[in-house]
Amino acid sequence: MRDIVVFSGSSHRALSQRICSALGVPLSPSVTSRFSNDCLQAQLGANCRQRDVYIIQPIVPPTQESLMELLLMIDAAKGASAAQITAVLPHYAYARSDKKDASRISMGGRLVADLITTAGAHRVLTMALHAPQVHGFFSVPVDHLTAIGVLADHFRGGNLENCVVVSPDLGNAKTATQFARLLGLPVAAGSKMRKADDKVVIDMIVGDVAGKRAIVLDDEIATGGSIIELLERLKDFGCTEAAIACTHGLFTGRAVERLSTHPMISEVVTTDTVPMPDVEWPGLKVRSVSGLFAEAIGRIHMGESISSLFDGVDPTHAPPQPTLFT
Amino acid sequence: MRDIVVFSGSSHRALSQRICSALGVPLSPSVTSRFSNDCLQAQLGANCRQRDVYIIQPIVPPTQESLMELLLMIDAAKGASAAQITAVLPHYAYARSDKKDASRISMGGRLVADLITTAGAHRVLTMALHAPQVHGFFSVPVDHLTAIGVLADHFRGGNLENCVVVSPDLGNAKTATQFARLLGLPVAAGSKMRKADDKVVIDMIVGDVAGKRAIVLDDEIATGGSIIELLERLKDFGCTEAAIACTHGLFTGRAVERLSTHPMISEVVTTDTVPMPDVEWPGLKVRSVSGLFAEAIGRIHMGESISSLFDGVDPTHAPPQPTLFT
Amino acid sequence: MRDIVVFSGSSHRALSQRICSALGVPLSPSVTSRFSNDCLQAQLGANCRQRDVYIIQPIVPPTQESLMELLLMIDAAKGASAAQITAVLPHYAYARSDKKDASRISMGGRLVADLITTAGAHRVLTMALHAPQVHGFFSVPVDHLTAIGVLADHFRGGNLENCVVVSPDLGNAKTATQFARLLGLPVAAGSKMRKADDKVVIDMIVGDVAGKRAIVLDDEIATGGSIIELLERLKDFGCTEAAIACTHGLFTGRAVERLSTHPMISEVVTTDTVPMPDVEWPGLKVRSVSGLFAEAIGRIHMGESISSLFDGVDPTHAPPQPTLFT
Amino acid sequence: MRDIVVFSGSSHRALSQRICSALGVPLSPSVTSRFSNDCLQAQLGANCRQRDVYIIQPIVPPTQESLMELLLMIDAAKGASAAQITAVLPHYAYARSDKKDASRISMGGRLVADLITTAGAHRVLTMALHAPQVHGFFSVPVDHLTAIGVLADHFRGGNLENCVVVSPDLGNAKTATQFARLLGLPVAAGSKMRKADDKVVIDMIVGDVAGKRAIVLDDEIATGGSIIELLERLKDFGCTEAAIACTHGLFTGRAVERLSTHPMISEVVTTDTVPMPDVEWPGLKVRSVSGLFAEAIGRIHMGESISSLFDGVDPTHAPPQPTLFT
Amino acid sequence: MRDIVVFSGSSHRALSQRICSALGVPLSPSVTSRFSNDCLQAQLGANCRQRDVYIIQPIVPPTQESLMELLLMIDAAKGASAAQITAVLPHYAYARSDKKDASRISMGGRLVADLITTAGAHRVLTMALHAPQVHGFFSVPVDHLTAIGVLADHFRGGNLENCVVVSPDLGNAKTATQFARLLGLPVAAGSKMRKADDKVVIDMIVGDVAGKRAIVLDDEIATGGSIIELLERLKDFGCTEAAIACTHGLFTGRAVERLSTHPMISEVVTTDTVPMPDVEWPGLKVRSVSGLFAEAIGRIHMGESISSLFDGVDPTHAPPQPTLFT
Amino acid sequence: MRDIVVFSGSSHRALSQRICSALGVPLSPSVTSRFSNDCLQAQLGANCRQRDVYIIQPIVPPTQESLMELLLMIDAAKGASAAQITAVLPHYAYARSDKKDASRISMGGRLVADLITTAGAHRVLTMALHAPQVHGFFSVPVDHLTAIGVLADHFRGGNLENCVVVSPDLGNAKTATQFARLLGLPVAAGSKMRKADDKVVIDMIVGDVAGKRAIVLDDEIATGGSIIELLERLKDFGCTEAAIACTHGLFTGRAVERLSTHPMISEVVTTDTVPMPDVEWPGLKVRSVSGLFAEAIGRIHMGESISSLFDGVDPTHAPPQPTLFT
Repeated sequence: MRDIVVFSGSSHRALSQRICSALGVPLSPSVTSRFSNDCLQAQLGANCRQRDVYIIQPIVPPTQESLMELLLMIDAAKGASAAQITAVLPHYAYARSDKKDASRISMGGRLVADLITTAGAHRVLTMALHAPQVHGFFSVPVDHLTAIGVLADHFRGGNLENCVVVSPDLGNAKTATQFARLLGLPVAAGSKMRKADDKVVIDMIVGDVAGKRAIVLDDEIATGGSIIELLERLKDFGCTEAAIACTHGLFTGRAVERLSTHPMISEVVTTDTVPMPDVEWPGLKVRSVSGLFAEAIGRIHMGESISSLFDGVDPTHAPPQPTLFT
Repeated sequence: MRDIVVFSGSSHRALSQRICSALGVPLSPSVTSRFSNDCLQAQLGANCRQRDVYIIQPIVPPTQESLMELLLMIDAAKGASAAQITAVLPHYAYARSDKKDASRISMGGRLVADLITTAGAHRVLTMALHAPQVHGFFSVPVDHLTAIGVLADHFRGGNLENCVVVSPDLGNAKTATQFARLLGLPVAAGSKMRKADDKVVIDMIVGDVAGKRAIVLDDEIATGGSIIELLERLKDFGCTEAAIACTHGLFTGRAVERLSTHPMISEVVTTDTVPMPDVEWPGLKVRSVSGLFAEAIGRIHMGESISSLFDGVDPTHAPPQPTLFT
Repeated sequence: MRDIVVFSGSSHRALSQRICSALGVPLSPSVTSRFSNDCLQAQLGANCRQRDVYIIQPIVPPTQESLMELLLMIDAAKGASAAQITAVLPHYAYARSDKKDASRISMGGRLVADLITTAGAHRVLTMALHAPQVHGFFSVPVDHLTAIGVLADHFRGGNLENCVVVSPDLGNAKTATQFARLLGLPVAAGSKMRKADDKVVIDMIVGDVAGKRAIVLDDEIATGGSIIELLERLKDFGCTEAAIACTHGLFTGRAVERLSTHPMISEVVTTDTVPMPDVEWPGLKVRSVSGLFAEAIGRIHMGESISSLFDGVDPTHAPPQPTLFT
Repeated sequence: MRDIVVFSGSSHRALSQRICSALGVPLSPSVTSRFSNDCLQAQLGANCRQRDVYIIQPIVPPTQESLMELLLMIDAAKGASAAQITAVLPHYAYARSDKKDASRISMGGRLVADLITTAGAHRVLTMALHAPQVHGFFSVPVDHLTAIGVLADHFRGGNLENCVVVSPDLGNAKTATQFARLLGLPVAAGSKMRKADDKVVIDMIVGDVAGKRAIVLDDEIATGGSIIELLERLKDFGCTEAAIACTHGLFTGRAVERLSTHPMISEVVTTDTVPMPDVEWPGLKVRSVSGLFAEAIGRIHMGESISSLFDGVDPTHAPPQPTLFT
Repeated sequence: MRDIVVFSGSSHRALSQRICSALGVPLSPSVTSRFSNDCLQAQLGANCRQRDVYIIQPIVPPTQESLMELLLMIDAAKGASAAQITAVLPHYAYARSDKKDASRISMGGRLVADLITTAGAHRVLTMALHAPQVHGFFSVPVDHLTAIGVLADHFRGGNLENCVVVSPDLGNAKTATQFARLLGLPVAAGSKMRKADDKVVIDMIVGDVAGKRAIVLDDEIATGGSIIELLERLKDFGCTEAAIACTHGLFTGRAVERLSTHPMISEVVTTDTVPMPDVEWPGLKVRSVSGLFAEAIGRIHMGESISSLFDGVDPTHAPPQPTLFT
Repeated sequence: MRDIVVFSGSSHRALSQRICSALGVPLSPSVTSRFSNDCLQAQLGANCRQRDVYIIQPIVPPTQESLMELLLMIDAAKGASAAQITAVLPHYAYARSDKKDASRISMGGRLVADLITTAGAHRVLTMALHAPQVHGFFSVPVDHLTAIGVLADHFRGGNLENCVVVSPDLGNAKTATQFARLLGLPVAAGSKMRKADDKVVIDMIVGDVAGKRAIVLDDEIATGGSIIELLERLKDFGCTEAAIACTHGLFTGRAVERLSTHPMISEVVTTDTVPMPDVEWPGLKVRSVSGLFAEAIGRIHMGESISSLFDGVDPTHAPPQPTLFT
């Protein structure tokens, strides 16, 4: 069996450390340098030859720097004769750019998938893609994990009485529906309307939320703008309290201020796929997904099934795995 | 300017004829033959050299035959030195296979996109992909038309009082939301629940439908099973009448029988992206999209913008085209 | 050493079972489903990760279904991180489409080879390609087996007195020549003439067949039409009895009726590369090639030479293996 | 319409001149230089930008030099932004290497096709490939001309009484059959037998040649060894005179001596796809194919059909062009 | 002839305007937006269909942002069916990363070339690559301009008495040699020595500089560190005054401060391939290369030769263009 | 661990034998044959299936033959299902063709790199590329060795008093600088000037050589013309004795005569990357690099680091390996 080597880019070294600890292998050293003309260069500090190389890097702000560092590290591993290179992307932010809803726009989700392959990755391990179809943007195998089990665990311990799971967007309500099923709760969703060419608003709530406590689920929270807007509509429709859950808690711009002080928000629950803001924020609960990634890496390396990983253990952590057409 | 040559596969020759009529160019002859060992062979009957070739073929039942005939025709055009080959796919049925929601399944939507490129297509012109992300499965440019303008035209002429647009699936409600906006109507959606590994049911309706008349919108209707199930739930929630609208009316299996006799259904409206069943069915209204395809082919050929095609004419026929981030 | 996993498509499951038995590994489960819009989906029922995967599927009628199922299974195996995927094609029917003998025709033999590679196959194992050059249509390594040893074994047991091997086509007489050499017999061949644009006839027999018993050898028999025509010419030239031998006995259309009742035919010998017609036909002798395929798969997996497989055992079963230019 | 530019490699500049004269365009200058380390470098002496570039180079001895010069010229044209590059290969000698008839041998016919594409050719124009399947080795479009019309013209003027067309090899008798049809003559063929691992002999003649005058047709004659051997067998079977015809008359080694003095040979007829040996040889008749190549290049450039080129003119010069399956 | 469309990325819009003015075509609008998760998206504001598209973007700080914006704009142009996309890179900063001089480092120069091709560029137009070999990193045609004519023009007007051209690095002295030839001056160079693993110093000057006035030529100046170091050595070897010339004047970090106040520096001459620092700096002379780029784009578009651009005009502006091996 | 198999092309079998001896594995047999039409064919005489295959072939005169033989051997190994193919190129002569310094010339260094990849090589092991950037021409990993340690060893034993290392070309003086550092000597270089379009001369020596003994270092010596010219300039500048050192001693044309009799030359030192001329030449010293290649192949095969190969042993033999940016 080939040896395993794990490297970490700069964007979330703490998570890489946690994954390596769980996996029981050391995090191998690497250095990313900046030329005086602002070009980057990656140097890997451990032998890659004929080895299984894993490079952990969520594509998070500064996003272009994170991405380019990842590509250079993959290139260095390829040039160093790695047998197999897996890009471990706890958050693949470019998945947001997954369709052409305007004339002559770029489709970053597909482009970046192609760039990662061009650089030399043989496989991608990621979590909670913005849409499940983004899986198909990659020409290499993708192992796609979900955090809804980890997030559901958080809420299972608490009081779920009179709760309803709410998706901010009617068009992306599938994961919210799965999440609701895990908790045995009903589901509702915001309905968006385009006011003008440049303005989309949530104008109504589809589903019954009156008098209920909402658990809002989103895949990614950046500035928190649409969450705030959703809360206003929820209030209009008779809901007065909300917990916020998301896989990728970027909390950019004024997100922390907005969310930590909002009167309707009871708590914000997220995972460590991305680095947490360096502020005091008691209402923030962070659940780690490092165990899931470590287990997945271990199984990829050992040639074990990832789908069977969760068999008989705790189906709520698993990626959806029904047998079709029986 | 290069000459234009249009060929038609066998799966819907009538539509090809309509498109060519609207375009004002003849449909060039071609022959698809079957060897005695059941292999197919395509022969194109017009010069392709240095020409813009368009091959029209919805991927519809018999689906594998339709697909293979398309691939062989593209191969023949490539071998005959076509300058540019556009695969015109009024219905791309494999778009349904757009994600990995079970272990070790194929993802036909991406695979077939790659096969079409391998055969030699330089561009795809299609309509109403099952999910907008499927656009990103293709490594060649895609022009993606919508039929919701054509379908909305149908309903605009009628009585819309007390109507609500209903999407069968909460997870795919975006197009229904756009359609509702075109008609100035509210929207509702069925919520699906997985009963067992092998059974998904619509267990509730999210949004208010009580006492209303539904206009159910789906992209494709095959056996009509989920439409029937949706109607039962709509009835449970107080709705007593429904019009059914879809872009791709395949009506396979018992669909005609089920839909033509259902007591709640007032009418079924579809387009001619696929061949219509050869039966008497007074309640079926078919709107043609041949004009849209002809206009698009003409503009592709002339190097004119497709997005600007509809400017100032009738925005409801247009693919979504807001300017982003203004 | 990596584990081995063998799957079977639907087109000839019995052969797959025989190969697995000979190989001593279980046939892993897989399910091919049909969406209501007639699209196919494949799901593999065994872990493929880092394994050597073999997918057995002769490309036989319904040919397009067989081919598409194969491509989807390869896609599923690739997506499931198989280390190496071998497409095992006991009969590659599209090999018939191996040249451009008319204007603007497709060349299915090359196209399908490219499709198989696009789907993700790393290697092909096949038998008795229509022409040896078809090997070069594949951009991946091909292991090309022959059945003429197995077929020759059949005739060695019988009376070869006064026999002559006859190829239906002067242009493809090479294999017949090899076969004749194995049996120590002379060779003759039909000479085809194009009567009109749409009609090719066998107009004469090149070589001496008068008063002899023919053993007609062809690679594939479909409707049997050209065999019947050849028999008429053989009769004209003084031959009164014939045994028919072929590797791929498809027997489509009226083949069984024609061949089982023809007064000149003493017996029809074929192999199990394709499924046999489900009829009573006492004159049909089927020899199994499952042992050859099992041995080849085992050697591919173990990294042993396939050409050396037959050294010192029975050269007549071997693919041609002279040392060149000594 | 784009401008046309024609370059010639070093291997047969006289033919390039003839083609350019017939085409009415000048032959553009180019220089191939040799570094002192024996590496080659090509420099094109005319603007290629956005132009249709044709590079004429038969792949003939010194074969590796001819090939490499061609590849470098294609590379130079690509780097100089040619719009379209056609490799014009009057003789593609590597077509001989078209199958794997021994263990672990290279398949040069496919490899060199890939090299030509890698260098940057968009299309190939060639003549009389050793086997028609070699067409399928190329991933770019191939226009494949035949010289049998030109060769048949030569014999039509003479006395064809009591003649028979003879193919040296039963396994490649298809073109001989077509040629015989053009002249209204019967066909016969040599049958080869492998004596030992390293020795193949023509051991018999299939078809009636006794008392007849043979017209031996081969695609390529190099040393002439197998022609001499065939003549001996023809003599054994009662034939006493032979004319020799071939498309590619390389006449390497002792070919000129052998063929020019052989008592049975009445004449040797060939074309100018390759340079003629620089010797006195009265019995050699060379027919030019420059007109065919000029016409083909002109039609490729003008986007006219090549298959229709010969319609109503002289079908004997045409590549086989039946309508299939009418 | 196809229409021409020119877009500009954000990194140096002023240069793009100058090029468009010289070219006589409008600069087409485009918008690059930033999602709240810091991903970029490009939208092109003019029809690209069947057009020649030029996207002007020097890869300069913020380098990763510049690069990613370029890639997204190319992707958008490709998706919008551009006929041909030329990436115009007045400065390709990643060319610095052109070799593996340490273990397991990335080679950004090649990687980024591949990324640009993957995104969809068909051609690159650039200037003064760090090493001429970087040309060969691209798999698409590259038109490579030089600014040494423009820089030489600057000095021709002045007093060249007693001057010597100095290259900072003996290993990259070729361009300095050409530049010296243009001015009729001798050449000298710094010789670098590695003091320790992490420290390289210029330890001597090869060539005679004593009592002379230096014109130091470099391709790119970033922080100016090595220029400062070179000046110290020049002083040690008896040189007391220096003019500094470079093509790409990035002037990052403390460059402006260092260079504008250095007692030995008489003037700093550069071009506008990159944006100038927004400071008062009287000693800085900027020469525009917009005319060269406009002329090159015009010739690419019209299919005219770029190498012949300068014939008979002013050879000093031309890329090196000798006829080899005459 | 996979088995290792080593083959040798024809161009330098003695070196292959030396490498195999040092490696302790047998050199596997192979045969390269020549068809009568001058095409080559390779046949490998040992099982390659699932093995690590190394093919040793310096690309030396007859260069095109050497190259084509290499490509065919790679093709044969690929077709024989080798797991991994490493092209071992002790001398990659086409590296000389590494830039476009004239209009519309080929860039053989990049083209041949692509050809080697197209044929099927997964990795390249080479030595002393003409420029370090040529590394980036390959899309597969390259292990790039240096011979300057071996050459320095030779001189370390002798008298270095009053010596200076001289590079023939100022533009390629980097390796000479490293070599000088290894010996603790100063460095000088010839400066080339273009006299006319077709003539480049060394017109001066940059650096102090008066009264010194030169050690001239070049990567490759072919005809020796520029060495002779350099010696004349050295003499003009006061140097009277020179030793010549180079990695690749091709000694083509009149090189032996020129160098062996030149009055200034004390000795010529080279390595065995290429075959030595078969003449009596006492002044020639050949140092073997077979040990370096054997060690590198062994480490590649075992998955050990090549850069760490020399740690703590003898840094002078190592490829440059500083840690960057510490």
